[in-house]
Amino acid sequence: MIAKKALLFGGAVGLVYLLFATDKARAQNTQDRVIRLAELEIDPAYVDEYKAFLKEEVETSIRVEPGVLTLYSVSVKGHPEKVRLFEMYASQAAYESHIQSPHFRKYKVGTQQMVKSLTLLETDQILLGSKFK
Amino acid sequence: MIAKKALLFGGAVGLVYLLFATDKARAQNTQDRVIRLAELEIDPAYVDEYKAFLKEEVETSIRVEPGVLTLYSVSVKGHPEKVRLFEMYASQAAYESHIQSPHFRKYKVGTQQMVKSLTLLETDQILLGSKFK
Repeated sequence: MIAKKALLFGGAVGLVYLLFATDKARAQNTQDRVIRLAELEIDPAYVDEYKAFLKEEVETSIRVEPGVLTLYSVSVKGHPEKVRLFEMYASQAAYESHIQSPHFRKYKVGTQQMVKSLTLLETDQILLGSKFK
Repeated sequence: MIAKKALLFGGAVGLVYLLFATDKARAQNTQDRVIRLAELEIDPAYVDEYKAFLKEEVETSIRVEPGVLTLYSVSVKGHPEKVRLFEMYASQAAYESHIQSPHFRKYKVGTQQMVKSLTLLETDQILLGSKFK
């Protein structure tokens, strides 16, 4: 009985420790992150089709790629054809793996004729302030 | 003995349920979020001073304001004077409260002479894909 209680307590302590350790590991690696901004202008005739491709690509990347941390996609208010992406990858390797993935290739090829212009900005971190960890 | 086990099991189930319920509540409110992009050009002579003001403002806002969800700040690679912010607030009320806060006012007044230009973009969400919840 006491042994069982001790086991349960030990398990609980272990779990809590694991959660904190994971959190700490994440926090320590933020300097490796690659953050890219993309500014796109979409052909107004294809905004809905483009968004469908983009949503599928974002949803799949976040779900299946451990190193794709954030793909925030928005459009400028009143200008659905002006799309902005805030992309955060765990590392350069994670970014390179992402652009070789089948879901990214599908999005890239599928939307090629819909994108009138694309500006990519590589960035340096100042401070990544967030409630989400 | 059996009663104690049942109690432990019930507690565990309750905890897991609570975690999922909280997650769901968060997910449901994403449509209320306000997302703003800011593009700033800083006087090159004041880049370091500007960054110190910005970091303090970001750190304080995330720590003390429940409705300030994300303040990601980066600069364009090779151009430390070109600053980009990705700002996410829980609601319009949270945004309005933020710009009235003493730490935001301190940043705004303190950096006034350092900022050569500021472009603010209001946005509509397409999809906020993220590993972080």
